[in-house]
Amino acid sequence: MTTARRDTYTPETLLSVAVQVFNERGYDGTSMEHLSKAAGISKSSIYHHVAGKEELLQRAVSRALDELFAVLEEPGALRGRAVARVEYVTRRTVEVLVAELPYVTLLLRVRGNTRTERWALERRREFDHQVAELLKAAAADGDLRADMDIRLATRLLFGMVNSLVEWYRPHPGTTPDQLADAVVSMALDGLRTKS
Amino acid sequence: MTTARRDTYTPETLLSVAVQVFNERGYDGTSMEHLSKAAGISKSSIYHHVAGKEELLQRAVSRALDELFAVLEEPGALRGRAVARVEYVTRRTVEVLVAELPYVTLLLRVRGNTRTERWALERRREFDHQVAELLKAAAADGDLRADMDIRLATRLLFGMVNSLVEWYRPHPGTTPDQLADAVVSMALDGLRTKS
Repeated sequence: MTTARRDTYTPETLLSVAVQVFNERGYDGTSMEHLSKAAGISKSSIYHHVAGKEELLQRAVSRALDELFAVLEEPGALRGRAVARVEYVTRRTVEVLVAELPYVTLLLRVRGNTRTERWALERRREFDHQVAELLKAAAADGDLRADMDIRLATRLLFGMVNSLVEWYRPHPGTTPDQLADAVVSMALDGLRTKS
Repeated sequence: MTTARRDTYTPETLLSVAVQVFNERGYDGTSMEHLSKAAGISKSSIYHHVAGKEELLQRAVSRALDELFAVLEEPGALRGRAVARVEYVTRRTVEVLVAELPYVTLLLRVRGNTRTERWALERRREFDHQVAELLKAAAADGDLRADMDIRLATRLLFGMVNSLVEWYRPHPGTTPDQLADAVVSMALDGLRTKS
């Protein structure tokens, strides 16, 4: 039996509230009590939808990870010169970050204290690894500089991209497209004027 | 009157323990009890040194901020072409991050719930602003690309630099110097081979 109040909640809206609370208080600092207050429903109503807060975390980071891994299966990531694929994946990663901002923010703040967090970290490493392989292929083609350590370059690239979750807020000044242009342009060609 | 145990503690060693605990548990999630356990001294012994955990936070982020602002007063940041000063400040910022890793990590994770945190955020913004001014001067000299929004470029640059606190661990493979080279090289010249 459900109440009218509970009926307005779908697993999707509960997830969206949970992600917001996790990002504000940190996952460790969030109790079922906090989630219940933020969602405006009782704890038992939450348990009607999910087994506990770890399930909410798992669903939230899965959403971010699924979107990120889907990019690697898109034609632009699979076909063409490796350097063009690096550019494509960088651009699409920025777009996913912007489109799924709270979910990716949560994913990037995961620290690894629970099974779900360790799994999420492992999936992030796998994503980074696949992009690093693309960079390696582009370097082998002679399209990326040979004097850069690829592992380091990949980390700096993701450092730049992932920082978006800390400072990017949607506003009319910078569209996701302009943001993606700026990231790709800085990462691949740098800020300095070509002489 | 002091005990032998307490005597081994200087404000400096207490600070170092506190920063480690803040970084592990988050500042909000750290109680005086946690600090007391980690330091192996009683809470009253801690109160002998500091008024409370906010004073420890304030000392810790001040240490990071002082080192960062000191860079802007060094000759390399004050003299020469603006683009060379951008390069110098970027390199030295990386060096400060590596040398003061736990302190800068704490500074970068500050979220702004207390007076000290809001002050630290304000100082960080001031630092970013001063570097943005340097980038602006370099763009005006024609040494940085005119098609990049300087505010955005500054954020991406710091995104890349600041990400170090999340993944850099000292090891023989990458010296701070090589790390600084890689950051400067990627930010200013990009990863792509020049054609």
